[in-house]
Amino acid sequence: MAPQPTREDKFSFGLWTVGWQARDLFGEATRPVLAGVEAVHKLSEIGAYGITFHDDDLIPPGSSSSERDRIIAEFKQALQDTGMEVPMVTTNLFGDPVFKDGGFTSNDRSVRRYALRKVMRNMDLAAELGAQIYVFWGGREGSEVDFAKDIRSALDRYREGIDLLAQYSIDKGYGMRFAIEPKPNEPRGDILLPSIGHALAFINELEHADMVGINPEVGHEQMASLNYTHGIAQALWQGKLFHIDLNGQKGPRYDQDLVFGYGDLLQAFSTVDLLENGAPGGGPTYDGDRHFDYKPLRTEDMEGVWQSASANMELYLSLKERAQAFRADPEVQEALAAAQVAELANPTLDVGESYEQLLADRSSFEDYDLEAARTKGYGYARVQRLALKHLIGRD
Amino acid sequence: MAPQPTREDKFSFGLWTVGWQARDLFGEATRPVLAGVEAVHKLSEIGAYGITFHDDDLIPPGSSSSERDRIIAEFKQALQDTGMEVPMVTTNLFGDPVFKDGGFTSNDRSVRRYALRKVMRNMDLAAELGAQIYVFWGGREGSEVDFAKDIRSALDRYREGIDLLAQYSIDKGYGMRFAIEPKPNEPRGDILLPSIGHALAFINELEHADMVGINPEVGHEQMASLNYTHGIAQALWQGKLFHIDLNGQKGPRYDQDLVFGYGDLLQAFSTVDLLENGAPGGGPTYDGDRHFDYKPLRTEDMEGVWQSASANMELYLSLKERAQAFRADPEVQEALAAAQVAELANPTLDVGESYEQLLADRSSFEDYDLEAARTKGYGYARVQRLALKHLIGRD
Amino acid sequence: MAPQPTREDKFSFGLWTVGWQARDLFGEATRPVLAGVEAVHKLSEIGAYGITFHDDDLIPPGSSSSERDRIIAEFKQALQDTGMEVPMVTTNLFGDPVFKDGGFTSNDRSVRRYALRKVMRNMDLAAELGAQIYVFWGGREGSEVDFAKDIRSALDRYREGIDLLAQYSIDKGYGMRFAIEPKPNEPRGDILLPSIGHALAFINELEHADMVGINPEVGHEQMASLNYTHGIAQALWQGKLFHIDLNGQKGPRYDQDLVFGYGDLLQAFSTVDLLENGAPGGGPTYDGDRHFDYKPLRTEDMEGVWQSASANMELYLSLKERAQAFRADPEVQEALAAAQVAELANPTLDVGESYEQLLADRSSFEDYDLEAARTKGYGYARVQRLALKHLIGRD
Amino acid sequence: MAPQPTREDKFSFGLWTVGWQARDLFGEATRPVLAGVEAVHKLSEIGAYGITFHDDDLIPPGSSSSERDRIIAEFKQALQDTGMEVPMVTTNLFGDPVFKDGGFTSNDRSVRRYALRKVMRNMDLAAELGAQIYVFWGGREGSEVDFAKDIRSALDRYREGIDLLAQYSIDKGYGMRFAIEPKPNEPRGDILLPSIGHALAFINELEHADMVGINPEVGHEQMASLNYTHGIAQALWQGKLFHIDLNGQKGPRYDQDLVFGYGDLLQAFSTVDLLENGAPGGGPTYDGDRHFDYKPLRTEDMEGVWQSASANMELYLSLKERAQAFRADPEVQEALAAAQVAELANPTLDVGESYEQLLADRSSFEDYDLEAARTKGYGYARVQRLALKHLIGRD
Repeated sequence: MAPQPTREDKFSFGLWTVGWQARDLFGEATRPVLAGVEAVHKLSEIGAYGITFHDDDLIPPGSSSSERDRIIAEFKQALQDTGMEVPMVTTNLFGDPVFKDGGFTSNDRSVRRYALRKVMRNMDLAAELGAQIYVFWGGREGSEVDFAKDIRSALDRYREGIDLLAQYSIDKGYGMRFAIEPKPNEPRGDILLPSIGHALAFINELEHADMVGINPEVGHEQMASLNYTHGIAQALWQGKLFHIDLNGQKGPRYDQDLVFGYGDLLQAFSTVDLLENGAPGGGPTYDGDRHFDYKPLRTEDMEGVWQSASANMELYLSLKERAQAFRADPEVQEALAAAQVAELANPTLDVGESYEQLLADRSSFEDYDLEAARTKGYGYARVQRLALKHLIGRD
Repeated sequence: MAPQPTREDKFSFGLWTVGWQARDLFGEATRPVLAGVEAVHKLSEIGAYGITFHDDDLIPPGSSSSERDRIIAEFKQALQDTGMEVPMVTTNLFGDPVFKDGGFTSNDRSVRRYALRKVMRNMDLAAELGAQIYVFWGGREGSEVDFAKDIRSALDRYREGIDLLAQYSIDKGYGMRFAIEPKPNEPRGDILLPSIGHALAFINELEHADMVGINPEVGHEQMASLNYTHGIAQALWQGKLFHIDLNGQKGPRYDQDLVFGYGDLLQAFSTVDLLENGAPGGGPTYDGDRHFDYKPLRTEDMEGVWQSASANMELYLSLKERAQAFRADPEVQEALAAAQVAELANPTLDVGESYEQLLADRSSFEDYDLEAARTKGYGYARVQRLALKHLIGRD
Repeated sequence: MAPQPTREDKFSFGLWTVGWQARDLFGEATRPVLAGVEAVHKLSEIGAYGITFHDDDLIPPGSSSSERDRIIAEFKQALQDTGMEVPMVTTNLFGDPVFKDGGFTSNDRSVRRYALRKVMRNMDLAAELGAQIYVFWGGREGSEVDFAKDIRSALDRYREGIDLLAQYSIDKGYGMRFAIEPKPNEPRGDILLPSIGHALAFINELEHADMVGINPEVGHEQMASLNYTHGIAQALWQGKLFHIDLNGQKGPRYDQDLVFGYGDLLQAFSTVDLLENGAPGGGPTYDGDRHFDYKPLRTEDMEGVWQSASANMELYLSLKERAQAFRADPEVQEALAAAQVAELANPTLDVGESYEQLLADRSSFEDYDLEAARTKGYGYARVQRLALKHLIGRD
Repeated sequence: MAPQPTREDKFSFGLWTVGWQARDLFGEATRPVLAGVEAVHKLSEIGAYGITFHDDDLIPPGSSSSERDRIIAEFKQALQDTGMEVPMVTTNLFGDPVFKDGGFTSNDRSVRRYALRKVMRNMDLAAELGAQIYVFWGGREGSEVDFAKDIRSALDRYREGIDLLAQYSIDKGYGMRFAIEPKPNEPRGDILLPSIGHALAFINELEHADMVGINPEVGHEQMASLNYTHGIAQALWQGKLFHIDLNGQKGPRYDQDLVFGYGDLLQAFSTVDLLENGAPGGGPTYDGDRHFDYKPLRTEDMEGVWQSASANMELYLSLKERAQAFRADPEVQEALAAAQVAELANPTLDVGESYEQLLADRSSFEDYDLEAARTKGYGYARVQRLALKHLIGRD
């Protein structure tokens, strides 16, 4: 039987995911509007514990102040009625034409100021709803014309924006952590902070670097042919995996936002293993919500939407079970030992050894048995074979 | 007439580029060995100022100590005879089967120790030849099997290796700067530090982070669909563009190492503009050698090799001239001003302005003229049209 | 000075290109509606000779019969006033939600019937406007779920649809030729007839194969890492290059629809050379309209739209001039001869030679000078260097 | 327990797969030579029924006539001893430097003649060993310099070569069928006949088109972002799936030749379903050998090689079992029916219906219930969810 998600699994969905009306560049919406309140109830029913949103997902742009208040009140009531949480909130700085050249890095300064105001306004709401994480996806921060965007100034402005907003959160006592979401391209020809690495490097330059981490999305890294599991491992290594966006993607092409696991299933398996079991040698794992940022197929009606929402959680849980069985399997443990996987945690130098001593160690170079090292097998084929066996649940 | 390279242009080539015998995964060598001495003389003749190498390029693996000495002596003589320099040296930690699972991050500790020794040995030679930059391309540091490589331990070992070697350079008074060269994949399924960003982020964790920067290669970034000009701009922004590898690539596919400009010519133009003219608003530019890391087509004999070597320099110089003409063109200046390109250097907040004051500025939000901002044109199409005009040298 | 397009250059644009309101998956429209009549006048002014459209571009879906008649009458008047032609027309079988699973190959038969009706209706209008080419882009014919689409049945239905419509054109005396436009993916996860090759192969199975060819788009092929110049050369070889869609794309990523030449400029150069000058050894070239299917950047207002429209034509004409100069250059001719480019037109066997005689020719194998053939250089590096010289217009 | 392959499963391997010494562009061989005889015995032991080879795999280039005879005799003996078959043979027209510009389409006519001779010689051997399929992979037929290769002449020469060899097979009574293997790039910048479609289209132009089909490789199509299952479905539709190469690939990057299923596992599942169960609506399936063309990881010794060889067969068999269970599951059958998958086999027109009657059917257009068609759900999300359930073997 399919594993049933529970609140403890900490699954969350963007309101814009199950609520996507399936309007794309080439065609009109195929599904009706899904109100926030309804989404809360339905997501709660199918086993999620949280919902996230962009300001404009919850409150239609152009709403009057009283409409806004009503929507928020009803949304809060729905949260209270269901016990659903709002672990993360984010700002839409890409939908309104005003942001066509970006928000924080638009060449037009008045747009940059407007963007900061829009974020602050929504941070107030996020804090009111108890969100711990505030995500920044700069989908319109970028360019198609290299000569028309001064990247270094753009990064200055990006930093200025994040620094100011971090100060705002601190001063207001919101206690939020920020998470930057990288993406290589689409909708801009090239987007700033295009990968996990670029975002991590950028964060180092921030005034409040300690409160800023990343929110990497499976598909965004895979659009750049990058290994998502490797990417989040580096983020964990740097203490910066603040949030995640799980979904699926079939390599470098348009942003597909498939159900988690429907792209590179084998890599999804290692991702879940890392998130749930930590590295082979242990080490910190991720403890935030398991957040799905996907798009239900445009061919589907609301019944199909909920099928796909459940599919995300169900597959995650299956992979979690399989990863636990993999780790528990004595044959796997033997194969991992033979492949010296845990050995890599041992420093290359002995305790207290310096390069002088290494230079003096003739066994390390002059007398090294090169031939043995050249011909030995690492046993990775066997590890992968066992991983597949567990992934597909073969006895 | 084609622009003629001079020593002042600081063009350099890897010995492994013009010396590539064109053996690939699918076929045997089509060209003879090119000795280091001959490469020095010939590169000097065609206008280069420098040559770089991996240890094994210059000194065939397995050479006796006396052969090694002779080769080095002759190479130094050739440098002296021609005035050629060795701005950069690097280690081959990928060709020998011993490195099949990497050098610094092999699951086999004895391999890691051997790798460190191999690097130190070659750093001594690099210092002797006056190299200022020492490059680290970890082409075999990575994996194909996620479950068989503990990425966090691998990054620990990578850091351990670089830290130790940095200390070695400092203690020896070599005064070198290290440059890490990212690559997403090939020859490993996934390589550690796969992009400019990942390498920049890694460097922040190093003991001697100040002496470590990056050596980004055009093609390696483009294999991940990343914009090279954007990438080196971020590296400049972080003060980390220590060296460059110029070549060409047609997007995500095998590593082509085409002549510089033969992949994405338009992006090559913006790259040269950035390197030579700095950002639109000024800012530091790159002042190291213009280093080509390409492979002459396998169909070519040595005549074709030198044709392609010259083609790299000649196209770079042409793009440099065009970039200067572009910057000097009053129509371009007018178009850049209209596109507010320099405006982005202005902080989003006024001097001394805090978020409180921004919140109080009704013109930034409550009274903002959204409609004007939504409908304005940014004038980027015109900038690009002018860039093309200059790139193709149309009057 | 920039080359000025004239009617003789046969440049045409889709109404949906300059008329794109810049609504994308992530954001709202940034530009106003552009009426067909205005587009005709403006395109005529800037030097185009033709305009093309999807039914829904010209006549907003839901228009009443009288509105439709009025729009068509005014459009015809504009054509008459300007002398503009309509060389090609096509059907929108992707925008309406009814086509979410495709038109000719929807799993829902009633949709398939509706799609055929929609096409026939628009073919009547195309004929009335004198269009010689009718294009079929099956952007929604495809799937994301392999198990939910029977590909062989889908191809049967695709064929059934094209066969029926071909018969309709014949019986009505429309004299149209059909052109199928391939695309690998987006908006569907995988689209049927994903490349030039797949479409050419499909055409062979049609009842009226002789009247069906292809309409390849630069970017669509390059999204699949395919060489567009090679692709249209194969189409010419098979007598099937009925129409073209010129634009630009930066390799495998979302469909960018850049200005022609703004993606892979070097390949754009060889494309224009092939279209204008034919193969090196001669052979039929393309004589239809030079049709641009691009999207003006979303950052631009209408002024930017027209800048980019002109940029397409201007760059095409520049490349045409450069290609002619390339072909006329004696040094190029010498280099092409040295590279034996024309030699490939010579049959491998002598006139009248059979395999028996080849087997008996010891010089072809037993006594073949392998070493000479292994070490010879093909001189391609020199050809490419000369191509670059001409492309960038260096003296 | 893992499924055990038997002779009836018709699994075959290229000698160059398990025999790959793991020399790549960046490094030396890590494994010893594997003789043909040993490969035959070992493959037989682990459950394969066949072995395939390039001439140069079996007989080292430069072997004397007597060495060649001895090798062949021993190989035949091994086949006899084990009962192993040779279902397919192919020619190496890419390894020798003589083929650096291709075999059939080299600009050098003497190379083309040599290539034909090399093929004929090996066809004699293939016939002697009972091979029914002869594969043509033109890995060096292509170019990096568009201006130096006349594609139409190249296709003429390609056709000339295949026509001559087909005639040779016919006249000799070899009864072979030819299978062309497409690939988009690597080792050439662009390869001729880059996809399944291009090869199918080319075949139509051949003199003996009936005896020529294709040999599509999973990874080659996926390097071009193409859906392999869709591709072989079109080949089956055109009666041209003569042979297959099964392996794995992670999208557009270097040719990885992973174990089958280690790239896109979900697509591997639909591939096996198509090969074993035919289309949802039935139709011809593939009945040739299940041929693996993969490369064991370079990190592995021979123990790892055989692990990976077994992994190919074992995973194929697991997917076959899962596909059968999927098809047999009543819930799946219900979901497929709801998704109208089989419905697509019904012609769009009624029996005897013409376009006139369709035009007269007001229910198809004028009175069509657009709203119902726009809002209906296709139920594909549910089908995919069930596919995943069966793929991972969840109860």
